Amino acid sequence: MKTIQSDNYPIYFEDSKAELVKFIKAGNYSRFFILTDENTAVHCLPAIKDQLGDMDNYDLIEINAGEESKDIDFCIGIWKMLIDFGADRKSLMINLGGGVISDMGGFAASTFKRGIDFVHVPTTLLSQVDASVGGKTGIDIDSIKNIVGTFTQPKAVFIAYDFLKTLPQRQILSGLAEMLKHGLIMDAAYWNTLKTSDLSQPSEELIHWSIEIKNKVVIEDPTEQSIRKALNFGHTIGHAVETNSLLTDKNPLTHGEAIAIGMICEAYLAHKKTGLSSNELAEIVEVINGLYPKYPLKETSYEVLLALMMKDKKNQSGKINCTLLDRIGQCNLDNICTDAELCESLSYYIGLQ
Amino acid sequence: MKTIQSDNYPIYFEDSKAELVKFIKAGNYSRFFILTDENTAVHCLPAIKDQLGDMDNYDLIEINAGEESKDIDFCIGIWKMLIDFGADRKSLMINLGGGVISDMGGFAASTFKRGIDFVHVPTTLLSQVDASVGGKTGIDIDSIKNIVGTFTQPKAVFIAYDFLKTLPQRQILSGLAEMLKHGLIMDAAYWNTLKTSDLSQPSEELIHWSIEIKNKVVIEDPTEQSIRKALNFGHTIGHAVETNSLLTDKNPLTHGEAIAIGMICEAYLAHKKTGLSSNELAEIVEVINGLYPKYPLKETSYEVLLALMMKDKKNQSGKINCTLLDRIGQCNLDNICTDAELCESLSYYIGLQ
Repeated sequence: MKTIQSDNYPIYFEDSKAELVKFIKAGNYSRFFILTDENTAVHCLPAIKDQLGDMDNYDLIEINAGEESKDIDFCIGIWKMLIDFGADRKSLMINLGGGVISDMGGFAASTFKRGIDFVHVPTTLLSQVDASVGGKTGIDIDSIKNIVGTFTQPKAVFIAYDFLKTLPQRQILSGLAEMLKHGLIMDAAYWNTLKTSDLSQPSEELIHWSIEIKNKVVIEDPTEQSIRKALNFGHTIGHAVETNSLLTDKNPLTHGEAIAIGMICEAYLAHKKTGLSSNELAEIVEVINGLYPKYPLKETSYEVLLALMMKDKKNQSGKINCTLLDRIGQCNLDNICTDAELCESLSYYIGLQ
Repeated sequence: MKTIQSDNYPIYFEDSKAELVKFIKAGNYSRFFILTDENTAVHCLPAIKDQLGDMDNYDLIEINAGEESKDIDFCIGIWKMLIDFGADRKSLMINLGGGVISDMGGFAASTFKRGIDFVHVPTTLLSQVDASVGGKTGIDIDSIKNIVGTFTQPKAVFIAYDFLKTLPQRQILSGLAEMLKHGLIMDAAYWNTLKTSDLSQPSEELIHWSIEIKNKVVIEDPTEQSIRKALNFGHTIGHAVETNSLLTDKNPLTHGEAIAIGMICEAYLAHKKTGLSSNELAEIVEVINGLYPKYPLKETSYEVLLALMMKDKKNQSGKINCTLLDRIGQCNLDNICTDAELCESLSYYIGLQ
């Protein structure tokens, strides 16, 4: 699978673990640090260690798995460990994990001593097709997602397809939502391919294609002034649903499950506001509902959900701003949505069979 | 006094408070935030409010004065207030204060929602000639200065000379150390002018000249890959002395007082290692000791000071790295200094009359 060239950094697919070791050696780093969580420490780190052979100028930093770890307090813990381990400006951070690891590890590295190099080795489908590409880093404060972060590009990304084999099905579905989104906002051919594929274990080709779409967008607009907003489709409502679930549910929604709900609601808004046809709306709903279990969203949550949407980074001057669709494969940026419209779209989701 | 053009932003001297208001109006910001401490809230904010007239789309954020406030915990407080005030990506942060305000306000703004605009209105001599120019932002963790930060340029800097009139003499001396440094590393004519000037209240011309020197350096090397390291003269030892004083002294050294000590020690190292003549060393010592009170540095602190120097951002591969001088007006970058040499330079300071 061909290496994808992003904004001054490569995204490797072939022999990516070996490429990682080559990269470290070529970089002449004084020391490197591998950030893992307890899952990747068990399932992914041994394969990396095998490749490292007798290299020993590194330390491990392990955090708990899960979005709760993306809080500023854990980030402070990482900074303190870097201090204690004597990390200098010629150090390298290797983020081995899912989106929490790459977002927080990227933020910690991009700000430690005003910035040390970092690379991503994404180990979940979600982080392979989304978090690891595009240079967004971030942490949460008071459960508000990515409220603090930077735009800083990694020095390289290493996609190892075999890491996905250890993932539970729910994690695959979580990443799949972003792949579906890439088709919906930008590439009808990709959407059509996805909907006729076996998606229980998406092929490496489908992942490569998804990253190509995202990469094209972020290269054109790295700091989200314009076309990058396309990637927010499903996320205005989806993020609010995700945060609310994280705060209230015993077994919270994954990111992708929440974005799947957000995409249905925002496809409904697109139908009402930007001309998405009823046939295409029905098709989107059918594909998504065929993949994701129905979530028991409640009308009593609307107030909290609207309050969360009001805190969304994409808003301006206190108005809630959504990326919608003209049609499948064609996004429509910067649509102000009223509270009434947003609630109507949530009710549309609730009313679906 | 002529506006200085920095890396894509202006540094205003004439009518700078009025220029600030023009800037806010032209920027079409959804809202702005003025970060102050309890001193600038009393001595500087009223003059800004006068200029703002009936503009009311702003909020005030006040922190305690002093380096202790530059801790990550206070920064989290600023982020939370920005969340509570509903700051969006089109918000502006105005940092009205000394180096603590500009460093931390700059860091908070450069990372909030992955970066909102900020400007500096420096109110101390130190922040006018140093912190406000060059795009370094930073906070302290565990009293390690600026261990976390970004390189992010402000959108403008507004130098108001009249703010200096309310400053105690000790604060003037604190800024003066950086002005002396600018002469020593880069401009013998400036050094010669300084040493024959009345420095109890440096003139606006001397401040303008100092900023021109710093600006030239940071434009050439914004992220400190090479010549910007010149600005670290006096800071390897000075920062350690400052941190140690902050941790142990009832009435800690100011930044400039510590840097004055650091410059004497590092001038001594320059004499030993990079050819600074004994006459020039004596001249530097005479000028600095004529301005700053002698600090009772103790040999029992050497171990702690060396440990602090080891955590300096400028080090690589565990070696302590100093910027020294070839002669007055000419710096010499990247000199590895041994513990023995560093201790010898501290003893040189202690041995001075």
